[in-house]
Order: sequence, then C-alpha cells, then structure tokens
Amino acid sequence: MQDYIGDLKKITRDYQLLSESAAVLAWDQETYLPPKAVQERGEQLAQLQSLAHSSLTSPRVGELLAACGCGDDTPGGTAGEDPADVAYLRQVYRAYTRQIRIPSSLIESLARSTSAAQAAWAEARKRDDFSLFQPHLKEVLSLVVEKAQAVGYGDHPYDALIDEFEPWMTTAEVSRVFKNLEPSLKNLASRIAERPQVDDAFLHQSFSIEQQREFARRVVQDLGFDLSRGRIDETAHPFTATLGAHDVRITGRFREDYFGTGLFGLIHETGHALYEQGFDRKILGNILATGTSLGIHESQSRTWENVVGRSRAFWEHYLPLAREYFPSQLNKTGLEQFYRGINKVSPTNIRIDADEVTYGLHIILRFRLELAMVSGELKVEDLPGAWREASRELLGIEPETSAEGELQDIHWSMGAIGYFPTYALGNLYGAQFWSAFKRKAGDVDTIIREGDFTSLRNWHRESIHCHGASKTAGELCMEVSGEVLKAEYLQEYLENKFRSIYTF
Amino acid sequence: MQDYIGDLKKITRDYQLLSESAAVLAWDQETYLPPKAVQERGEQLAQLQSLAHSSLTSPRVGELLAACGCGDDTPGGTAGEDPADVAYLRQVYRAYTRQIRIPSSLIESLARSTSAAQAAWAEARKRDDFSLFQPHLKEVLSLVVEKAQAVGYGDHPYDALIDEFEPWMTTAEVSRVFKNLEPSLKNLASRIAERPQVDDAFLHQSFSIEQQREFARRVVQDLGFDLSRGRIDETAHPFTATLGAHDVRITGRFREDYFGTGLFGLIHETGHALYEQGFDRKILGNILATGTSLGIHESQSRTWENVVGRSRAFWEHYLPLAREYFPSQLNKTGLEQFYRGINKVSPTNIRIDADEVTYGLHIILRFRLELAMVSGELKVEDLPGAWREASRELLGIEPETSAEGELQDIHWSMGAIGYFPTYALGNLYGAQFWSAFKRKAGDVDTIIREGDFTSLRNWHRESIHCHGASKTAGELCMEVSGEVLKAEYLQEYLENKFRSIYTF
Repeated sequence: MQDYIGDLKKITRDYQLLSESAAVLAWDQETYLPPKAVQERGEQLAQLQSLAHSSLTSPRVGELLAACGCGDDTPGGTAGEDPADVAYLRQVYRAYTRQIRIPSSLIESLARSTSAAQAAWAEARKRDDFSLFQPHLKEVLSLVVEKAQAVGYGDHPYDALIDEFEPWMTTAEVSRVFKNLEPSLKNLASRIAERPQVDDAFLHQSFSIEQQREFARRVVQDLGFDLSRGRIDETAHPFTATLGAHDVRITGRFREDYFGTGLFGLIHETGHALYEQGFDRKILGNILATGTSLGIHESQSRTWENVVGRSRAFWEHYLPLAREYFPSQLNKTGLEQFYRGINKVSPTNIRIDADEVTYGLHIILRFRLELAMVSGELKVEDLPGAWREASRELLGIEPETSAEGELQDIHWSMGAIGYFPTYALGNLYGAQFWSAFKRKAGDVDTIIREGDFTSLRNWHRESIHCHGASKTAGELCMEVSGEVLKAEYLQEYLENKFRSIYTF
Repeated sequence: MQDYIGDLKKITRDYQLLSESAAVLAWDQETYLPPKAVQERGEQLAQLQSLAHSSLTSPRVGELLAACGCGDDTPGGTAGEDPADVAYLRQVYRAYTRQIRIPSSLIESLARSTSAAQAAWAEARKRDDFSLFQPHLKEVLSLVVEKAQAVGYGDHPYDALIDEFEPWMTTAEVSRVFKNLEPSLKNLASRIAERPQVDDAFLHQSFSIEQQREFARRVVQDLGFDLSRGRIDETAHPFTATLGAHDVRITGRFREDYFGTGLFGLIHETGHALYEQGFDRKILGNILATGTSLGIHESQSRTWENVVGRSRAFWEHYLPLAREYFPSQLNKTGLEQFYRGINKVSPTNIRIDADEVTYGLHIILRFRLELAMVSGELKVEDLPGAWREASRELLGIEPETSAEGELQDIHWSMGAIGYFPTYALGNLYGAQFWSAFKRKAGDVDTIIREGDFTSLRNWHRESIHCHGASKTAGELCMEVSGEVLKAEYLQEYLENKFRSIYTF
C-alpha cells in the first residue's frame, strides 16, 4: 500500500511541478508579456498543460489507484488508515477520474469552441448585440452538457458542472440555501431603498496612484501577506496566482478617480493569498496544497475585503493613516461618513459593481438561468428576455442593453457554467466561519480596531487554510461551524451591519 | 527524406518549446522571484530542462538523423539539397551528439560538483582565500576534462571545450589569432600609458536613476530594440534572454554615482537583443533561431556598445539630449571631453572593468591558464602564482589579492572552461564585420551622427542576424568579410581610435 502511494506521489509531484511551471507562464502572460508574444505563449502553455494532463491520466495512475482500492464509492481507497493518505488518494482519484472520463475529442471541441466563443462574446459585448454571441453560446452549452454526461452525476447534469468548481457540492444543496437567502436579500434591499442614501462623493476624488499603491501595500502587509513568499503587481483584471509552494502572487488595479477599486481589490486578493500561503508544511508541494473549493476560496477573499476591510473598526484603525496619505481628500471626512460611504447599497445591473446586499441576487439570477439552460427549459435565444425578467424580479431594475445584461460576464463564453454559485457560497461560508470565529475570539471589533490581525489570521490558518484540499468544503463547514451550510449567518451579518448604516 | 525531416522537426519543436518555457522560468528567477521560492524554482527548472534533454536525445532522434545520413563527417546529412535542411540537420546532429556522448552519470557529477563549487567560490572570494576554492576547482577541472574526452576532439581536449561555446572553433585557431593580437595590444597600451591621462570625473557625479532609465530606454529604442517583441527590466547582473520567437528581454543596472554602467550596459544588451530579434521569419521558432556562437553574439553587443556607442559621432548626436536629462551634470562637459572620458584606458585587475584596449589581454591571460590547466601543465594549486606572473607580463600590474585575481570570475566554478575566449573573439569578429560594413556604407560617421541607425541595423540583420545558426561563425566571417578571422581589423580599429584620443 505504502509503495503504491509512494509511486503515485512521484507522479503527482511531476504533475504538480508542471502545473507550477504553467502557472509561471500564465502569470507572466498577464503581467509582463510583450504584445507580439501572445500567440507563442499560448503554444508554450498548451504544451505544459498537455504534459501535466498526460502525467496525471497515465494508465499507471489508474493501476495504482485501483491497487489502493479507490473507486467511486471509496475515493480515498480501502486500505488506508492514515487520514493524510486517505485525503491524498481522494484528491488524486477525483482529479484522475474527472480527466479520463472526458474524451480527448470533447476536450478539443471545447477548447476550439470556447476560444471562438470568447472572441465572439467580446465583439458582441462591444457592439451590444447578443445575436453575435448566441450561436456560440448554443454550441458551448451543448458541449458543456455533453461534458456533464461524460463525467456523470447523481440527480441533475448541473451537479457535474458545479462539482468542477465546488467539489462534492450538489444542485439540490445550492438550491436549498439560495431559496432561503433570496427573500431575505430582497427584503433587506427594499428596506434600505426606503432610507435616505449615504453620501460617498469623497471616494470619487483624485487619488494619486503612487500614493494608493504605497498605502495598499502597507495595509496588505499588515494583514499578513508575506512578500518573502509572494509579490504584488498590477494588471487590468486583478487575480491571485500560485506559482509554487512559496510563491503566491497577487495583482491589483488602481483608478485615480476612485479610491475603492485599488485598496479593496488588493485586500480581496490578499484574502485569497493568505489561504494559499497558509497551507500546512506537510502538504506543501503536494496535490492537496490547493484551495478545497472556489466557494471556500472566495469565503477568504470576501471575509478580508468585506467583513474585515469594510468594517467600522478597521477604519477606526486605518482612517488616520489614510489621511496621512491623502490629507486634502480625506481630512474633512469623518469616520462615520467614511464607513457608510464604503458600504453604500444601491442596485446596479453590473455584478462586479454590486454591494454586499444585492450581490447574492446577481448570483441567484445566473444560477436560475444556468439551471434552466442546462435542463433545456430555457432556450439560448430566449436568454435576453429571461434575463430582463429575472433582473426585474430580483433586483427591481432591468438592463437597457445586452452589454449591461446577459453579455456582461465572460464566464459562459469560457464554458464556465456552474461557476457563478461559488461567489455567493463564498459569502455564505465566510459569514458562517466568521460567526464561529466570534464565538471563539470574543470582542472581534477591539482586535480589528487595534490593527493587529495575528489572531484573526491564525484562526483562519488553523481552522481552514492549513488543510488545503485535505478536507472538503462540507467537512470544513461542519468542523469549523458545527453545522451544514446555512443562509442564516449571512442574513444576520448583513441585517446587523446595514440596519446600523441605514438606521432602521 | 522530407518525411524524416518533418518528423524530426516535430520533435525539435517540442524541444524548442520546452527550452522557451525554461527560459521564462529562468528570466523570472533573475527578475521577480520571491526570495523564499528560489529552491522550488530550481526543481521546476530542472524538470523542464530534463524534459527538453530527453526529447532531443530520444532514440527516435538518433534513428531519424541516421536515416538522413548525418554523421561526424556529414553532420548536415547526405541526401539534402535544400541548404536550409542541411543547416537544420547539422544543428540537430551537433546538439544530439554532444548531449548523448556525455554519460548521464557525468552530467550529474558535473551538476553536483559545480553547484558546490559555486558556493565555495563565492565564499572564497568573500574571504579572499583561494585555498577554499582549490579542491573544488580541481574536481571541476577533472570532470570537465572527462567531458572533453567523452565528447571527443581533434588535436587538444580544449577543442571540445571551446566548441561548446564557439561551435567548430579550435584551440589552434584561437592561438593563432591571439598570438597576433597580444603584442599589438601590449604595445598600444604602453604607448597610451606614456601620454597624459584623460579626465573622466564628470562621469562620477550623482545621476538620478529615474532619469538614467528614461534616457537609456530612449536610446536603445532609437537603436532599434523592439519593445513590442521584448522588455527591459533591471537586475543585479544585466543579461539578455530569449523566451520565444517574439520575446527577447534585456536587463540593465543603474548606478547613481556613475553614468557609464547603466547606459553602456543596456546598449551592450541591445546588441545581443538585435541579433535575437533579427532572425529570419523562416527559422523563427526553430532550433536554428539562436546565435551561431557566443563569439558572434558578443561581436554584436560589443559593436553597439563600443564601436557605435563609444564613438565621437554617436555623442555628437546624443550629448545634447543627455544634457537635457542631466543639465547640471553635463552642461559644462564638451563633446571632446565627453568622448575621451568614456574611452579612458587604464589597466585594472578586474576584467569586467577593463577598457577596450586592455580587455583582450585579460582574455589572453585566462586562455593561457585554462589551456595549461586542461593540458595538465599547470596544477590548480599553482594557479595563484601563475595568474600573478601572467598578469604582470600582460597587463603590467598584478593583483594584491586572490579576490582581485584568480577568484574574480564565476566561470570556472560553473565548469565553463573554454568560455572566456569568446569575449575576445567578439571584439575580433566585430571589428572585422565593421570594416566590411564601412566598405559598403561609406561615411559611417555621418550616418551615426544623424542618429538614424536603420542602415546600420539592416546591414547587420541581413549579413549576420537573419541566418541565426544556419551558418557557422567561420562561414559567416568568410561570407561577410571575405577572409578568415584576423587580428588586424581590431588592431587597426583600436590604433586609429586611441591615437586620436591620446594624441600620438
């Protein structure tokens, strides 16, 4: 048994190294690649990804997994006693089976058609013309459904899709939680809409990018981002990338005319990065050294960005420092005004501009439409109308253009159907974990107000980060909070926070 | 035949892509890698290098080369009529045979012992104690000689060593050219030493690094460095790296207290980069898209740095612009003073600080000692004394410490014995090519003075760059200059230049 696992570990180490090298090339592509090298970089990356894929799907891996007793009912094997081995085998079995079940002809068709669909989507969005994207979405959708069939699922083909991004999650569970969440978000948003709006004009002044950069670097290092094992760069679309066990890189984007984009974006990425920098030494460099699901990953970024970074206590600590960086812009802005301004709630058609309260409704809208399209209940040509109708019902507004509606997100053009729910799951897991942390740590506001984030970071590291993918999202949720995922924690957090801000 | 070449091209394309990916990782390691990721980056790189090595040395490559009739006497095959195929086969055969002839146990021993030797060298240099490095150099030398035996050679084991860096070059030819060069360099240096020294104090003022950076970026773009297919970054040790057909990156280093380091260093790298950016489209992405030898590569960097960048005509054009960037530092410095200052000749113990006249003597010193060590005529323990003696004889000075003597260069600790001659060959090839260019272009000073480098760049591209490794250094030299390599062109160039500067 140990021999089989040892052999397997050599192969998955090769896979890991190849994946890391691919991550270096991909990071460089987003940050520093000369414009004319884009096409050859695609070839270099495709070669590394193909080598990584081949190493993980070699027949030898199948033999070794079988020898360890891994199967659909026993993904962690049958003979293992060491929980670390069971977790390792489960992760390898999962990755292996997902990859070998999808025929290479389908992988190629998906690559070809999503590549064309992305170009068509960009053009359609630019011209605000859904008809340009429609045939591509139809083709991508049909291939994605074919992929779901190939991978296999329990109740619904969408199960196989969401499972790609949120392992072991099911459509039924997402539906159950979203069903609870939806009315409370709508209700809270409508109560807020009746109150006088807060004033956030102070955020829309001219803020030197150089000063923003310095301030943000200082804040994220305070939060615990380790620059000896990472970097901060700037890109059009911020992201976090892991290039090795000791190499986690985040990127930000600063806007001179709006203070919110740069700092909160970098705090968000820092949340992702703390997770990636927090894996236990025992799993570093191993296939388990990865976020266990996108929802759990997003719980970390959202917690640091919103629950911590947009809290009153956080700005009790940082507003004086922010005023040193931006005296003329912020000296006249009081703490309360600042706090309310950065938490302004106002429905928008654009998901990525949404506030904490309405954000979940954007996700519920997409989940509903994805499910209907995958089931065949909604035809692609009817998507624009269905989008407007759902938007009116959920957000109380509807987009006047396709570009601000069903064409706003890149995800579907990439074949990433089943991805959106993970954003809302992030908020839900985050609130549930935060509640557990508060039970443990007591007066969390005082901790944050003092600007020492050690205990906060350590709790998240010890409870969540250290495990990597050794525990599933569901196992983590149960272990950390003592319950399955529930909508109530997020509801309670939002209710308390926004009743205070909008005074009702 | 075409089928065999087609199959071979698929394999060498894989090899090329893997080498490019490795180059991305290596570039990142020198520029942006977080400090704690150094070790894992070594593992990632070793994997890619090993995959590249395996692809090129697979038995199938040997079979295909044999099928094309490639052998030691017919490296370009026997059946090929298309010169492009012959050049391609010659390059593959050369790379393949060099790699398969070295047993993997020897490759591993070399990797292990040079890794230890580099650490020991750094420590020995820091402590100025040759004895710390001596046993390591002894071991590296013995392995390098073993490598020469494995690769095979004609007259002298050193042939196999220099051939690694300067393909098809022999010890006898280097000896012949250096023998001519040596007395003329010594003679010129001693005549200069009798003249009043020029004043270069103006170079040693405080120059804002930001301003230097902008000025240098402007100059190297004028020279033709294409930023749509490359980048400029900053590192402790400047270098040029090729990460793909359209991705050639250079780095520089700026010193606030000395103007010469930054600009001339970047012009030097630009010379390398113009070569790498100038390969013909027909060979791009192919194993021939590389410099044909380090000597030819260095001829390009030295030509742009010294022959062009340190010419009077160049500063007739650029001094007014330099004064705009550095008015307080340069407004009082006249053209003639500037020109003489940047060309100051003064013997030094340190090779990398040497001027154009004495540089070659540093190389002749190393060539002489390397040859003696490889032949067994000089024992490693006698190196310090031999170094001092040779230095006195060639440069007229001798180092007071090992750190300024036999420990100053990293090359031997890396097993790079046979490398040094290529630096001097660069100056020799460069001068010989320059003479050919002048015969063609006529009044070169006027061209440079006008600041339009198009004709200069185009001539080098069409005569040298476009071929990549399709022509050997010797073939290029004969084709471009009509003669074999001779010391006379460099002698004449130096004589004319420095007689004018030192007025004799």
